[in-house]
Amino acid sequence: MSKNVLILPGDGIGPEIVAEAVKVLNVVNNKFDLGLTLEEGLVGGSAYDVHGTPLPEETMTKAKASDAILLGAVGGPKWDNLEDRELRPEKGLLGLRSGLELFGNLRPAILYPQLADASSLKPEIVSGLDILIVRELTGGIYFGKPRGIRTLENGEREGYNTYVYSESEIRRIAKVAFESARKRNKKLCSVDKANVLEVTVLWREILEEVGKEYPDVELSHMYVDNAAMQLVRAPKQFDVMVTGNMFGDILSDAAAMLTGSIGMLPSASLDKDNKGMYEPCHGSAPDIAGQGIANPLATILSAAMMLRYSLNEVAAADAIEEAVSKVLDQGLRTADIFSDGMKKVSTEEMGEAVVAAL
Amino acid sequence: MSKNVLILPGDGIGPEIVAEAVKVLNVVNNKFDLGLTLEEGLVGGSAYDVHGTPLPEETMTKAKASDAILLGAVGGPKWDNLEDRELRPEKGLLGLRSGLELFGNLRPAILYPQLADASSLKPEIVSGLDILIVRELTGGIYFGKPRGIRTLENGEREGYNTYVYSESEIRRIAKVAFESARKRNKKLCSVDKANVLEVTVLWREILEEVGKEYPDVELSHMYVDNAAMQLVRAPKQFDVMVTGNMFGDILSDAAAMLTGSIGMLPSASLDKDNKGMYEPCHGSAPDIAGQGIANPLATILSAAMMLRYSLNEVAAADAIEEAVSKVLDQGLRTADIFSDGMKKVSTEEMGEAVVAAL
Ligand SMILES: CC(C)[C@H](C(=O)O)[C@@H](O)C(=O)O
Ligand SMILES: CC(C)[C@H](C(=O)O)[C@@H](O)C(=O)O
Repeated sequence: MSKNVLILPGDGIGPEIVAEAVKVLNVVNNKFDLGLTLEEGLVGGSAYDVHGTPLPEETMTKAKASDAILLGAVGGPKWDNLEDRELRPEKGLLGLRSGLELFGNLRPAILYPQLADASSLKPEIVSGLDILIVRELTGGIYFGKPRGIRTLENGEREGYNTYVYSESEIRRIAKVAFESARKRNKKLCSVDKANVLEVTVLWREILEEVGKEYPDVELSHMYVDNAAMQLVRAPKQFDVMVTGNMFGDILSDAAAMLTGSIGMLPSASLDKDNKGMYEPCHGSAPDIAGQGIANPLATILSAAMMLRYSLNEVAAADAIEEAVSKVLDQGLRTADIFSDGMKKVSTEEMGEAVVAAL
Repeated sequence: MSKNVLILPGDGIGPEIVAEAVKVLNVVNNKFDLGLTLEEGLVGGSAYDVHGTPLPEETMTKAKASDAILLGAVGGPKWDNLEDRELRPEKGLLGLRSGLELFGNLRPAILYPQLADASSLKPEIVSGLDILIVRELTGGIYFGKPRGIRTLENGEREGYNTYVYSESEIRRIAKVAFESARKRNKKLCSVDKANVLEVTVLWREILEEVGKEYPDVELSHMYVDNAAMQLVRAPKQFDVMVTGNMFGDILSDAAAMLTGSIGMLPSASLDKDNKGMYEPCHGSAPDIAGQGIANPLATILSAAMMLRYSLNEVAAADAIEEAVSKVLDQGLRTADIFSDGMKKVSTEEMGEAVVAAL
């Protein structure tokens, strides 16, 4: 039975890094006889340039028909000043997440032993770091309504957004988080601001409730300001963290940066049936786009994550992850993770090296 | 002309650390002939225990009549389960901030050279760190309405909060930030999520507008997720950062923790006339309350900040800051900043040492 994978290169460095991941996918497709069919689509600014919208209907149709999606990144200064905010590249990404109900965002922050030096933190603070951040991705303030900018009676304008979660939205992401924790070290820290925000009072309550079904998982709660501090102070205290869309956006990026090698970190965005979209944690990096120096490994590892979670091809996923580890052992480094004594390589050379290691 | 200072010890370690700051204030009051009258008041859980409310009218009256306020900290598990959320300790603090219109929160993140080792970051990343975070403190989602938990038609509950800023609220905090940047290294980074949240689109627009009045200050904008990363990666790129209430809460705590010595960091919350409330950046630390081991230096430095910003007593402020530096040079350390070869002291011993150094 053939499986369809939709490839969405997107903007900025997206096309360059995705090209390398596609090479890798093609190799494992043959080697492990996976029967994958790869198809391409447009999203973000590059879709806007062609179709006048960041999420063409054709892309949405293909996405719905696919078994999994691999995305590069979207956005860039070229589209930052689009008057109609609905046409900005980010809306393409948000539209995919919400249209496909990809509410469960898994963002691992793992320190590769070969790259321990890259961290801005002291080695003893981060060595062996392995956190999983579970971020709710289709609700909260990023999607809440009402929203906009209105003019008040006194003539001045006011901007407003709504941070909202229903019980069922909280419950389903809580389950994803508890299930993930169960497969790891059985510790789940839920992050909220329940001392101030009512929406997170409900969040905490539902987490407690769902927690009763997972007596083997140790549940704790932490305020978001404290969580930001604890990630800096002693990140290894965490196993799995779960939080809403906005706090998750902030904390997962901070956690990723603790490793010093965000160019290495994949992510998964899953629906209730584990169908998913996979993308690197880093963004479209328009400043280095087109130079052939971006790190393709986060995207290649996203492809591995896709094989593991959505396509159930564990052997192929393992093979890719081992190949990545091998090229690191060989001392190959793109500019973002380069250090003295290593061999600096281009995006393409890095991709080819992974292919060779397979 | 006598000046009134209201002392609000609050909860947890609050009373212990404030007691030491009061000793220090009394000494400089005599030494510099400041004519300060110190008065005490109740706020937070300790006010609730006596008056059934975290912000008694008497405290508010005293606060309004005072020239400046020194606060310890509020909150603790004892009051975490109060059914009526309006009665929780945090509401006392939020009520003071909003009742006194203390919209301008200044949170410095400074690395004391004597404590360079305390940071979890590599020395080269944080040595000499000196960032000022300007946080809007009386608006945004912490105060926005509507808010609450309601039952939907389908029977499930939904929690909601409103993130809202008007032009004038943004303008006044922008001015505080630009003025602060002007007195420092003339670099201001405004943090928002303008690619997703409309309220921060308006924020960015007003910052640009106010920036025209400060051509000598270099204004930049950064998304909050990226700001969280950059603080971890290369915090010395920042001079002054300005942001809303919630992002400011998160980022200022992360920034404070970069120094590894949050027990050293004071903060100021100012109204439009520079009348203000001063408090340590750390919280009420209920886990170590009553043990006499908390670090009083952040509170003592908050008193110095109070003398500088609200009471215009620069010489006295300088004297306190120098005395603090001296006790650090002497190798005195409370438990939170202790390292090998230093002398571990109690809260009281630390306070006495500062008094002696004066
Ligand atoms: C591009 C942007 C809309 C997006 C988000 O904030 O969700 C990105 O920052 C991310 O974290 O995936
Ligand atoms: C105690 C709490 C309400 C408060 C806040 O979030 O503002 C605290 O975290 C702070 O940062 O001063």
